[in-house]
Amino acid sequence: MTTIGHLINGIVQNDAARTQNVYNPSTGEVSKQVALAGKATVEEAIAAAQAAFPAWRNTPPQKRARIMFRFKELLEQNADEICRLIGEEHGKISHDALGELQRGIENVEYACGVPELLKGEYSKNVGPAIDSWSEFQPLGVVAGITPFNFPAMVPLWMYPIAIACGNTFVLKPSERDPSSTLFIAELALEAGLPAGVLNVVNGDKEAVDTLLDDSRVQAVSFVGSTPIAEYIYSRASANGKRCQALGGAKNHAIVMPDADMDNAVSALTGAAFGSSGERCMALSVAVAVGDEAADALIGKMKAQMQELKVGAFSDAGNDFGPVITKAHQEKVIGYINSAEEDGADIVVDGRNPQVPGYENGFFVGGTLIDRVTPDMLCYRDEIFGPVLLVVRVDSMQEAMNLIDAHEYGNGTCIFTRDGEAARYFSDNIQVGMVGINVPLPVPVAYHSFGGWKRSLFGDLFAYGPDGVRFYTRRKTVTQRWPSAGVREGVQFSFPS
Amino acid sequence: MTTIGHLINGIVQNDAARTQNVYNPSTGEVSKQVALAGKATVEEAIAAAQAAFPAWRNTPPQKRARIMFRFKELLEQNADEICRLIGEEHGKISHDALGELQRGIENVEYACGVPELLKGEYSKNVGPAIDSWSEFQPLGVVAGITPFNFPAMVPLWMYPIAIACGNTFVLKPSERDPSSTLFIAELALEAGLPAGVLNVVNGDKEAVDTLLDDSRVQAVSFVGSTPIAEYIYSRASANGKRCQALGGAKNHAIVMPDADMDNAVSALTGAAFGSSGERCMALSVAVAVGDEAADALIGKMKAQMQELKVGAFSDAGNDFGPVITKAHQEKVIGYINSAEEDGADIVVDGRNPQVPGYENGFFVGGTLIDRVTPDMLCYRDEIFGPVLLVVRVDSMQEAMNLIDAHEYGNGTCIFTRDGEAARYFSDNIQVGMVGINVPLPVPVAYHSFGGWKRSLFGDLFAYGPDGVRFYTRRKTVTQRWPSAGVREGVQFSFPS
Amino acid sequence: MTTIGHLINGIVQNDAARTQNVYNPSTGEVSKQVALAGKATVEEAIAAAQAAFPAWRNTPPQKRARIMFRFKELLEQNADEICRLIGEEHGKISHDALGELQRGIENVEYACGVPELLKGEYSKNVGPAIDSWSEFQPLGVVAGITPFNFPAMVPLWMYPIAIACGNTFVLKPSERDPSSTLFIAELALEAGLPAGVLNVVNGDKEAVDTLLDDSRVQAVSFVGSTPIAEYIYSRASANGKRCQALGGAKNHAIVMPDADMDNAVSALTGAAFGSSGERCMALSVAVAVGDEAADALIGKMKAQMQELKVGAFSDAGNDFGPVITKAHQEKVIGYINSAEEDGADIVVDGRNPQVPGYENGFFVGGTLIDRVTPDMLCYRDEIFGPVLLVVRVDSMQEAMNLIDAHEYGNGTCIFTRDGEAARYFSDNIQVGMVGINVPLPVPVAYHSFGGWKRSLFGDLFAYGPDGVRFYTRRKTVTQRWPSAGVREGVQFSFPS
Amino acid sequence: MTTIGHLINGIVQNDAARTQNVYNPSTGEVSKQVALAGKATVEEAIAAAQAAFPAWRNTPPQKRARIMFRFKELLEQNADEICRLIGEEHGKISHDALGELQRGIENVEYACGVPELLKGEYSKNVGPAIDSWSEFQPLGVVAGITPFNFPAMVPLWMYPIAIACGNTFVLKPSERDPSSTLFIAELALEAGLPAGVLNVVNGDKEAVDTLLDDSRVQAVSFVGSTPIAEYIYSRASANGKRCQALGGAKNHAIVMPDADMDNAVSALTGAAFGSSGERCMALSVAVAVGDEAADALIGKMKAQMQELKVGAFSDAGNDFGPVITKAHQEKVIGYINSAEEDGADIVVDGRNPQVPGYENGFFVGGTLIDRVTPDMLCYRDEIFGPVLLVVRVDSMQEAMNLIDAHEYGNGTCIFTRDGEAARYFSDNIQVGMVGINVPLPVPVAYHSFGGWKRSLFGDLFAYGPDGVRFYTRRKTVTQRWPSAGVREGVQFSFPS
Repeated sequence: MTTIGHLINGIVQNDAARTQNVYNPSTGEVSKQVALAGKATVEEAIAAAQAAFPAWRNTPPQKRARIMFRFKELLEQNADEICRLIGEEHGKISHDALGELQRGIENVEYACGVPELLKGEYSKNVGPAIDSWSEFQPLGVVAGITPFNFPAMVPLWMYPIAIACGNTFVLKPSERDPSSTLFIAELALEAGLPAGVLNVVNGDKEAVDTLLDDSRVQAVSFVGSTPIAEYIYSRASANGKRCQALGGAKNHAIVMPDADMDNAVSALTGAAFGSSGERCMALSVAVAVGDEAADALIGKMKAQMQELKVGAFSDAGNDFGPVITKAHQEKVIGYINSAEEDGADIVVDGRNPQVPGYENGFFVGGTLIDRVTPDMLCYRDEIFGPVLLVVRVDSMQEAMNLIDAHEYGNGTCIFTRDGEAARYFSDNIQVGMVGINVPLPVPVAYHSFGGWKRSLFGDLFAYGPDGVRFYTRRKTVTQRWPSAGVREGVQFSFPS
Repeated sequence: MTTIGHLINGIVQNDAARTQNVYNPSTGEVSKQVALAGKATVEEAIAAAQAAFPAWRNTPPQKRARIMFRFKELLEQNADEICRLIGEEHGKISHDALGELQRGIENVEYACGVPELLKGEYSKNVGPAIDSWSEFQPLGVVAGITPFNFPAMVPLWMYPIAIACGNTFVLKPSERDPSSTLFIAELALEAGLPAGVLNVVNGDKEAVDTLLDDSRVQAVSFVGSTPIAEYIYSRASANGKRCQALGGAKNHAIVMPDADMDNAVSALTGAAFGSSGERCMALSVAVAVGDEAADALIGKMKAQMQELKVGAFSDAGNDFGPVITKAHQEKVIGYINSAEEDGADIVVDGRNPQVPGYENGFFVGGTLIDRVTPDMLCYRDEIFGPVLLVVRVDSMQEAMNLIDAHEYGNGTCIFTRDGEAARYFSDNIQVGMVGINVPLPVPVAYHSFGGWKRSLFGDLFAYGPDGVRFYTRRKTVTQRWPSAGVREGVQFSFPS
Repeated sequence: MTTIGHLINGIVQNDAARTQNVYNPSTGEVSKQVALAGKATVEEAIAAAQAAFPAWRNTPPQKRARIMFRFKELLEQNADEICRLIGEEHGKISHDALGELQRGIENVEYACGVPELLKGEYSKNVGPAIDSWSEFQPLGVVAGITPFNFPAMVPLWMYPIAIACGNTFVLKPSERDPSSTLFIAELALEAGLPAGVLNVVNGDKEAVDTLLDDSRVQAVSFVGSTPIAEYIYSRASANGKRCQALGGAKNHAIVMPDADMDNAVSALTGAAFGSSGERCMALSVAVAVGDEAADALIGKMKAQMQELKVGAFSDAGNDFGPVITKAHQEKVIGYINSAEEDGADIVVDGRNPQVPGYENGFFVGGTLIDRVTPDMLCYRDEIFGPVLLVVRVDSMQEAMNLIDAHEYGNGTCIFTRDGEAARYFSDNIQVGMVGINVPLPVPVAYHSFGGWKRSLFGDLFAYGPDGVRFYTRRKTVTQRWPSAGVREGVQFSFPS
Repeated sequence: MTTIGHLINGIVQNDAARTQNVYNPSTGEVSKQVALAGKATVEEAIAAAQAAFPAWRNTPPQKRARIMFRFKELLEQNADEICRLIGEEHGKISHDALGELQRGIENVEYACGVPELLKGEYSKNVGPAIDSWSEFQPLGVVAGITPFNFPAMVPLWMYPIAIACGNTFVLKPSERDPSSTLFIAELALEAGLPAGVLNVVNGDKEAVDTLLDDSRVQAVSFVGSTPIAEYIYSRASANGKRCQALGGAKNHAIVMPDADMDNAVSALTGAAFGSSGERCMALSVAVAVGDEAADALIGKMKAQMQELKVGAFSDAGNDFGPVITKAHQEKVIGYINSAEEDGADIVVDGRNPQVPGYENGFFVGGTLIDRVTPDMLCYRDEIFGPVLLVVRVDSMQEAMNLIDAHEYGNGTCIFTRDGEAARYFSDNIQVGMVGINVPLPVPVAYHSFGGWKRSLFGDLFAYGPDGVRFYTRRKTVTQRWPSAGVREGVQFSFPS
């Protein structure tokens, strides 16, 4: 059986230490093994990145960008293979994997513009014949720790821009579906990255802690669940590093009485059940304003959900696939059970989906639960499964209060035709990414991704302009040239 | 005796709890008492800031800026009184206090431009008929914790821009010289800030910890010593807050053989001894390249230092005043003693300055120490006194290696006429603020202030553009308007 | 009788040449004389500006900005006197003059931020060890030619930012109401502008042509009517100068059936009749979509217009005052006559307003004309009087086609509650300044002002970021420092 | 014989009207014919561009950028063929043609970042609950008119960014070497540009005037000689268009006594003779400060020029090739003759170069002329040939005065090691593109290209950020949503 190794200093290798099973969630079978890097292996990767830094930092940004141009081409040429690897280990249907990859490629495209993005600020005559400018220099070795649900996209949120800015990188991807991530990293090297500029180590907590504690690592980017994000942020910060840690979500959509209901239903169906709901931007709660809107929504959703096809990743006719593990499948079903016990109304029940030929796959069918209330467990937690909750409220303000009371603040959306409602909502809601009639308001690559409240720890968001700022360190130079003929008196006061 | 209180919700008050002595360091006498806020008092200030936030946030930026315009006028009109208060409690000579104030005012001027600075990014057609924009919204309640050495300037680095961005503020200034800070905050209210927008609490660790732990405080800015900066950064981060913590420094100036030596000596004299060296940007180490440069430097410095006048703050003819406390005076003298014991050459000895009429003042005279080596205690620590060390090296690269090996990376400078030396130095040195023939390369208010390595924890610098980014939270809105005639099919894939 | 002179090199003077009457339009009487500068006088002003340029250009931007801070204070302190001067010569009621002045002051506030606005772009390593940066340097002497309708505001659109950028300025204001303009310029000098930095010449075509033809004048900003704008742009360009020339307007407001009609009527009344309609942003055409909306609009407008008070500038209870001249009064009445002859419906007739005690004032009352069609003279021309035309159409698209067919494209507005209508309108309409439920969408000072089509000639708008760009010239520096040890071979190819 | 036609609406066609000879300047023979478009043909191209505009404008910028990504790939894949076409018709050696192409490709790379570059400015709460933002919308049909000397690069300065911004384009390249330009345009279509988005018309003054006069053309970019630039700017402006017109140059290099002389000589040799001096950035005047520097320079130049190889484009071992036409060859030789007659010292004489096998080619050899003075014809005019003049002066200031007195201000350079000299020079010199030890300071694609004085007419430079601004029109939207419960009173004053 294949064992997936690490990419260190340009070479794929395996430290022959501990390994862990990698499953095909569509069949429930173990398909590969993944090596789990020990401390020494991670330190080897850090050392490779450290060694590669000086030359890479001095490479003109335009030349670094040109490798990103080539990387984009290779990603496009290898899209089918990448999507197959994602599907096999994550379970995502190919059209969805392609969407993920495309979003990742957009970040590579953004990194191609790094000469423009790195421009510093130049001020003439900050004092008489004194000039001052700010440069944005790379940090050195930076690390990324990424989740299973987007094995292609989330790493591409991080290292293309980090590397284009002149840093070198150590990536610790999810050990659940490591193959596509590793394959993509190899393409980056094929595109021309010098050895050591991008390194990948597979691993678990030991690898993570090594990255968090090693003083050579200057910054850490993390995407995952909130408890781990909090741990990462706290530990990296205690070690004096800069850190951005993105956590969980519970994304609500407000459905206003004036919404275009067919459009809202279409949007919600895709945003709630796509990728089995295993997205931090999944829309998992619909908040209907008024019983009339709620009844219309439930009725149309129910009808639409008849058409949902859950099944193996390899059949492009499916809408979504299995969840990531057996344990997670049971957890999702447990949330549905709890909702039922708490008195909610299970309108469409996905607990026993039929997927002929894939009886051991980790499937959960699309589930719609009405009359959910904020005190229910299914409402408080992030389920990360194909489950859409409906909460009924009497007013838009009540809907907004509900959203603001939740601990997460990642994404949200409102369905309406009314300009005033849209403006009031987007201005006041305590959520970082807001959609107006857009169910998955993931910012494009030239904006930045991040939630508020306990969905993100740090002050700069992921990718886009904030990514550039996160992966660079400001240096301000103030310059004057003494003229042989001009001598100044001593200046004891603070210069003004 | 006067007891200096707190400014909470627009009212100067005193919680009548613990107090601490405030000294006049020129005479060594206790001049006032300062109240030390307990947890409840700090929470009251936070509550006031929290209550003031919603209305302040919705006030148009231009109207917020106009209060800053008025604040600037009041600062200028009250400059004499501010400088007197600074001098009395800090010991700084009036011309130096005025320099400090002027630098603070520049930050108010920068805050006057906040409508421009808050501009978000607007993108048309991120998808077909879909628009997306990023807004930079205020965080809510933010806190600042500031040091004794710039009681006017450092608070003004923080709250003018924080408040102009729409936040409300709780300031915990140094308890050693609190009067000018409080007076200036009252002027800000006089300029038109609504009650609760700016609050000042005097206090010690209890007050600090309350700010770090209270969940209503969204962000913390700190300036002080590195051990405390590290504590603040770690604790604020563990509480999920954003934090920027600026610490200590050991600023080196390289003196190249081609330097304009008279200019360098003038510059060094002011930058090493001004404000008794109690500046995080003080130049405390001169690194002479070659013995010829070293000998010339020492010779000219010695001559120039004959003219130095140390004395009470109230005499504008003095060059610098006392250090802040008796304990600090002893500590500085201890460092000079240790240098002597370690074999360095005390060229000019300031351990027994004569200041007639002020025999109990906390004075240390200007001190010049030659032949210092990196292993000496006086080199490793930040002395924060009027002591200039000279290290002799053989090459520019050796000088740069020395600087890069030090734990701090705040400011540095090179004296040279050579363009290539200046570029190589500023590009490669691991220091955040670099001067070319500029001894105190404090960035102007429209750039940002920050060191590298253990001189700053966090990813954004103080004031200027980074200040705006630190005190705001990105929100990205993605908007489309459904057309009655256009219905989309369900979209299960991740949108690309 | 007072003769208003010129401000040249810091001195108000009079070349004792030709003069022209200045009227008080409220009484119809001649109140002053204004000197009309000959070629020699204008050249003297240009020479003064040229002489002042080198020192002013080298003054640090922050110091230039501080004069703008002071200028703002003086404008606020002298607001009453400025408004009185405006009212006396222009006829504008004091509350309206104050609004104009306030908008002008906003441009001074913007100019206070010039250190930030002048930041150039700095790129490290555009090639190996080669850096490049762009500076935005002032042009030298620049000229502004401004209209009668905003004697305070339009000059303040131009010279504060031009001067803050380091240019020196020659202003040729309208000869119809020159006093407030001159008074304000004197305040700018009082604020600290060195002599020669700002010069004012009153005059007519001879003065204008001198400015357009003199090779020392680097750039010309103009605001006025379209035929003159076209002349200015063409002649200045033929002389190799950069030029921005803002012309006329015919601003339409679309009233949609779903509009908040009371709000629309209030907005239209102010925007159509305020300042007697003598504004290039006046809303002069309401396009009602559907007869129902049209009838409701007409009914409510008619009622609202009963309350309109036209009268002398000195009575703050009046809504608007006289038009600028007897000739213009007759021209406006002529347009109303022509509408009547062309078959339009004069709903409210302002041709014979009663203003007791001011029988010779140049008054026209608020006029509402329904059933106007695009072929009528009153529709094709800019009337520049208190006349609101109503055109009835069947659809929003028809309304937009109408707007796009007009030669002007300055401002426009839509009244609606619908997000999609607002987006479609603002995206597609061929107009530079668009309001959504905002009747006078004059951009704030930190954005830029400009129309499309024949309302503006040039590529950069007035004031705001475009103003900064217009008044500066890009200079790009590319720098490398040869290392003694590194010699390059000859390079014959174009460097890549 | 082949006749080179036009590319209109996606189809290469020939209007079978007038034609003109295209030469191979290496052999002196006519190799092809080029069609000269009449007015009707140009109008057909404009109509095609006009028709393509609405759909192209609405294509999301990211999708437009992706065509640029593909275009870049095609340019790289077809580099050899492009260079062959350039060489054949222009005479440029392949390594030089490749340098030109590479610089062109950089502009395509820059255009790939257009989603970032098109970001507008978004302001929340410009008034209470009123938001305002600026969009940068495409203009419509824009035209480019380009010179013979860079048939690949200069068109690529213009249309990639213009098109990426959403405009459609009509290009009128030089009729002397049209093949590479046309071939590249076909690649752009192959990359995915819809028909009509990019059109190429070959032609002469009739084609140019049609572009200048047609009201559908919104903007004109021109690169060529100053007299034509002035004509273009004046006529386009008189027609109300925006225009940027780049003209001639006389680029001086100051050689300071402290210069690294070997480096300076290498740099000058390439910059003066590369591409036979037919570059608007060619260094054609060396200004030596002091006779010592002058003598050293002349001595080393003379030696270095022994190695110069002039010959046919097809031999990569040559340094440079022929000039463009027989007439131009004679003109260049005429200038050398005049210098000799005027008393200058012809140090190296290129009037009779020997190029065996290419006796009819339009060759001029590298020529070095010492002791040139500012009154000589060879100094006043742009020679545009492989001729380097040396002027001797006594001081740096004298050298700078000389440069500033010349009518052109395109590029310039200083050779020195001194930081102060570099800063003083770059700050004060009246030239748009300044090199410090960089002989051809052509800004990289992410900065902008343009000269000062009579080297550029207009206010925005070519390509880079200025290119984006030139090819877009600002639109400012101000939006508020009326709340049903909130009614405002009528507002007659100008809003403040």
